[in-house]
Amino acid sequence: MNNNDTIIALATGSGSGAISVIRLSGPKSIMFADAKLNLISGKAFKDQPTHTIHLADLKDGNRLLDQVLASIFIGPKSYTGEDVVELSCHGSSYIQHEIIKLFISCGVRMADPGEFTLRAFMNGKMDLSQAEAVADLITSDSAAAHELALNQMRGGFSSAIDSLRQELLHFASMIELELDFAEEDLAFADRGELIKLVQKITTEIKFLIDSFSLGQVLKDGVPVAIVGAPNVGKSTLLNALLNEERALVSDIAGTTRDTIEDQLRLGTILFRLIDTAGIRKTQDLVEGMGIERSLKTMEMARIILQLWTNETDLEVIAKEWAELKAKRPKQLCVGIINKRDLLSKLEIEILSQNMPDLMIISAKETNDLARLKKTLLDFVDTGALNAQSSIVSNSRHHDSLIRALESLDRVQDGLDSGISGDLLAIDLQAALLILGEITGEITNDDLLGHIFTKFCIGK
Amino acid sequence: MNNNDTIIALATGSGSGAISVIRLSGPKSIMFADAKLNLISGKAFKDQPTHTIHLADLKDGNRLLDQVLASIFIGPKSYTGEDVVELSCHGSSYIQHEIIKLFISCGVRMADPGEFTLRAFMNGKMDLSQAEAVADLITSDSAAAHELALNQMRGGFSSAIDSLRQELLHFASMIELELDFAEEDLAFADRGELIKLVQKITTEIKFLIDSFSLGQVLKDGVPVAIVGAPNVGKSTLLNALLNEERALVSDIAGTTRDTIEDQLRLGTILFRLIDTAGIRKTQDLVEGMGIERSLKTMEMARIILQLWTNETDLEVIAKEWAELKAKRPKQLCVGIINKRDLLSKLEIEILSQNMPDLMIISAKETNDLARLKKTLLDFVDTGALNAQSSIVSNSRHHDSLIRALESLDRVQDGLDSGISGDLLAIDLQAALLILGEITGEITNDDLLGHIFTKFCIGK
Repeated sequence: MNNNDTIIALATGSGSGAISVIRLSGPKSIMFADAKLNLISGKAFKDQPTHTIHLADLKDGNRLLDQVLASIFIGPKSYTGEDVVELSCHGSSYIQHEIIKLFISCGVRMADPGEFTLRAFMNGKMDLSQAEAVADLITSDSAAAHELALNQMRGGFSSAIDSLRQELLHFASMIELELDFAEEDLAFADRGELIKLVQKITTEIKFLIDSFSLGQVLKDGVPVAIVGAPNVGKSTLLNALLNEERALVSDIAGTTRDTIEDQLRLGTILFRLIDTAGIRKTQDLVEGMGIERSLKTMEMARIILQLWTNETDLEVIAKEWAELKAKRPKQLCVGIINKRDLLSKLEIEILSQNMPDLMIISAKETNDLARLKKTLLDFVDTGALNAQSSIVSNSRHHDSLIRALESLDRVQDGLDSGISGDLLAIDLQAALLILGEITGEITNDDLLGHIFTKFCIGK
Repeated sequence: MNNNDTIIALATGSGSGAISVIRLSGPKSIMFADAKLNLISGKAFKDQPTHTIHLADLKDGNRLLDQVLASIFIGPKSYTGEDVVELSCHGSSYIQHEIIKLFISCGVRMADPGEFTLRAFMNGKMDLSQAEAVADLITSDSAAAHELALNQMRGGFSSAIDSLRQELLHFASMIELELDFAEEDLAFADRGELIKLVQKITTEIKFLIDSFSLGQVLKDGVPVAIVGAPNVGKSTLLNALLNEERALVSDIAGTTRDTIEDQLRLGTILFRLIDTAGIRKTQDLVEGMGIERSLKTMEMARIILQLWTNETDLEVIAKEWAELKAKRPKQLCVGIINKRDLLSKLEIEILSQNMPDLMIISAKETNDLARLKKTLLDFVDTGALNAQSSIVSNSRHHDSLIRALESLDRVQDGLDSGISGDLLAIDLQAALLILGEITGEITNDDLLGHIFTKFCIGK
C-alpha cells in the first residue's frame, strides 16, 4: 500500500451522459490539477478554499481539452481523507480518456479498484464493514438491499460487533493480568461473570449468523425456480407475475429468450424468477448440461414453484409433490395446479380434499396471482427485518462470525473444564482477532486486497 | 417553453459507477433541495454561498435515501443561468431513481432532452450554434471531432457567421432607409459597394458550405468501403489495418461477426471501415437485400478500397477498375492487388506497367500497410483543416447556408438587373433571417424543438 502517490479514475459510469466526473486523490492532487487548470476567474486553483467549485479551461500545454467545473476538497475533509480534486467534464468517452491520459503522463497513477475507499479506510474515515457497505450500496437494486447497505455504511452493523468485542476485550485483559501475577494465584477475572458474558456473546453472534439468511435475501433477492413439465404454463405464469407481455416476435434466430432470469419486485423485496425451461432451451445442443444446470438452479433457489396441470394423473402429482418436499426440506416448495379454468368443479373438489397444501390457480386470474404473490412475500419475514437492527449480509462477515463462534465455543469448553488462564487467553485472543477483522481494527494486506479488488475502479 | 418550473435529470451516464450526479435547475431548485437536505454541518443549504459543496443526508421524510455531496450554483452564475443544484450520490440506479422520484413528487418536473442547454440558450449563456456544439462535444470520439466541437462551442463558427450578418445588416438598413424616403428618390446604399459586399459574403458562404464535406469527415469519421470478390483477403486486410486479431472462435451460432463496421484512428482522424462482405453475410437469408445494402454502403463511402488478387485475369481487373473510377468520380477509389506474396517478380512488373495507379500490397507487410494508411490520411486535407478557422460540421447549418446563398444569389440578380429597393429588401431580409437562425438570433419554437430533442436527457 502506497498512500504517497496521487491516483486518478473516472468516478461516474462509463456510459455516455451530459457530464462525467474524474477524481484525483493524494498529496499532490491539487498541485497536479492546478498545473492544468486555467480558472476563468483568473485566480490560482491551488489557493481556493476547500469545498468550492471553479469553472476552468483544462489544458494540455496550449491545447484546450475541455471546459470543466473543478471542485477542491482539502484533506482530511474529503472522501478519502486526502486532498481530492473532482473534475466535472463533458460526458464524452474521448474527453474522459484524454483527461486521464494527461494526468497519467504527469505522474498521477491510475487508481486500483476500490482504492479511493481503501484510502478512506486507511485514513480512518470509515471502518472496514462500512467500506464494504459502500460497494453494496452502489449495487443495491431494491429498497431492502438499499436500506441494508445504508444502515451498514452508517455503522449499524459495526457498532454491534464492536460493543461485543469491547466487552470481551475487558475480560481478556483481566485474564492477561492474572497471567502477569500468576505466582500470586490471583483471579482478577470472575469466572462466573466470564461464563455469563461468553454465553451472552455466543447468543448474539448466533443471532447475527442466523440473520445472514435474511440478509442475503434482502441484498441479492430471493431466487425462485419455476419447474414443471413442458406446457404446464411456466412462461405464462412468469409473464403474468411480471405483468408484462414479453416481446416474443420471431426473428431469424428463433423465439429463444435472451435472459432466463427475471426480476419481480414485491414491496421492498426483490425476487429473481428463473424459468428452468429457459435453461434447457438455451442449452438444447448439450441436453445433459442443461439438465444439470436446471438441478443446480433448483438447489440454489430459496423457493421452488412446481407446476402441474390436470393433464398429469393425480397419483403422479401426489408422488412428485411428496418427493419434492422430502428432497427439499430447507426450501419453500409451492405446489401449483395451473390452468384451473380447464378443471371441472368436481376435479377441483377432489384435488383440494386429497392435497390441501396445493394451490389451484389460473395465471389469468388476478386474485390467484395475488395469493401466489402473498405466499412469496410471506417467505421473507419482514417482521424479523423490522425488529432486528443488525443483519449480516456479507459472506465475509458471516464466515468471520462462524469462526468467532468456534473460538468462543472453545472458551466455553475451557471454562466448563476449568482450564488454566493462559490456555483460555489463547482462545479469547483468537475470538477477538476474528471479530476485529470484521470492522478492520485488525487487518492485513491479503484481507484488504481481497475486499477492495471487488470494488469498481473509481470508488 | 416554460422557464418558471424547476427541472431535474440524471446528468451522468446511466451505467453503474462510483457516483452519479443529479441536476436540478429552475427558480425553486435551491428551495426544493433545501427541504430534503440535512447538511452535516447543521447549516441551512439555502443560505450557502454559490459554488460551494456540502456533505448532507438526503431524506424522504424520516427515510434516509443517501449521503450526498450537494453543490449550489446561484443564477446567473450557472450552466443554465438559473439557480442550479447538483447532487452527487452513490452510483446505484436504484438510488438515482429514488432521488429523482422524490423531487418529482414535490413538484419538480423531469427535464426534456437538452432542456438544460435550451435554458442556457434562452438565458443568453450561449448562442444556438454553441449549444449545438455541446451535443457534438459529448458524442465526439476522435481528436478532430473533439477540436471541431470545442472550437464551435467557444464561438469560432458563430462569430464568422455573425460578422457576415452584421455587414449585410448595415446595407439592409440603408436600403430600408431609402424606402422611407422613397419619394425623394435618394440612394443611401451605394449599389457598387453592395455588389462588392454581396460578392464577398457569397464567397465566404460558399467557402463555409465547401467546408461541410471536411466538417462531416472530422465529426463523423470517413466511411471506407472494402469491396471485392470472396477470398481476395478483405477480412485479413481489415484485421491487419486494425492491428488486432479478431476473436473468430466458433460458438454455436457460427463465426458470423456481430459488427460489420470497425473504427480505425489514424492521427486525429477516425476512419469507419465497412467490410461489405459482412453485410451480405449477416443478411444471407435475404440475399437481394444484402446486395442492395452493399451498394448503398459503397455510395455512402468517401473512400472505396477495391481488392483483387492474381486469381482474377489482368483484363478483368483493368475493366473493373476503369468502370469503378468512371462510376464513382466523387469518391476516392483505391485499387489494390492483394496477396503480393503470391505474385512473381515478372507479374508485379507487368501489373505496375499496365496499371500504375493500382497498389500492389500484402496485408502481412507493415510497409505496405503504412503506404495504404498514408493514402487514407492524405484523403483528409488536414492542411485545409489548419488553415481554415471556421468549418461547418452541422447539417442544419449547412442547409441554412445553402438557403442563405440562394437568397444572396437573388440579391445579386436583382442588383445586376437594377430592380427596385423594396424588392431587394425582401431578399436581403430573407438572407439575414436565415443567417440569424444559425446563431439563434432569430428563432422559433419549431426550430428549437427540432434542435434540442436530439440532445440526451440531462444536458
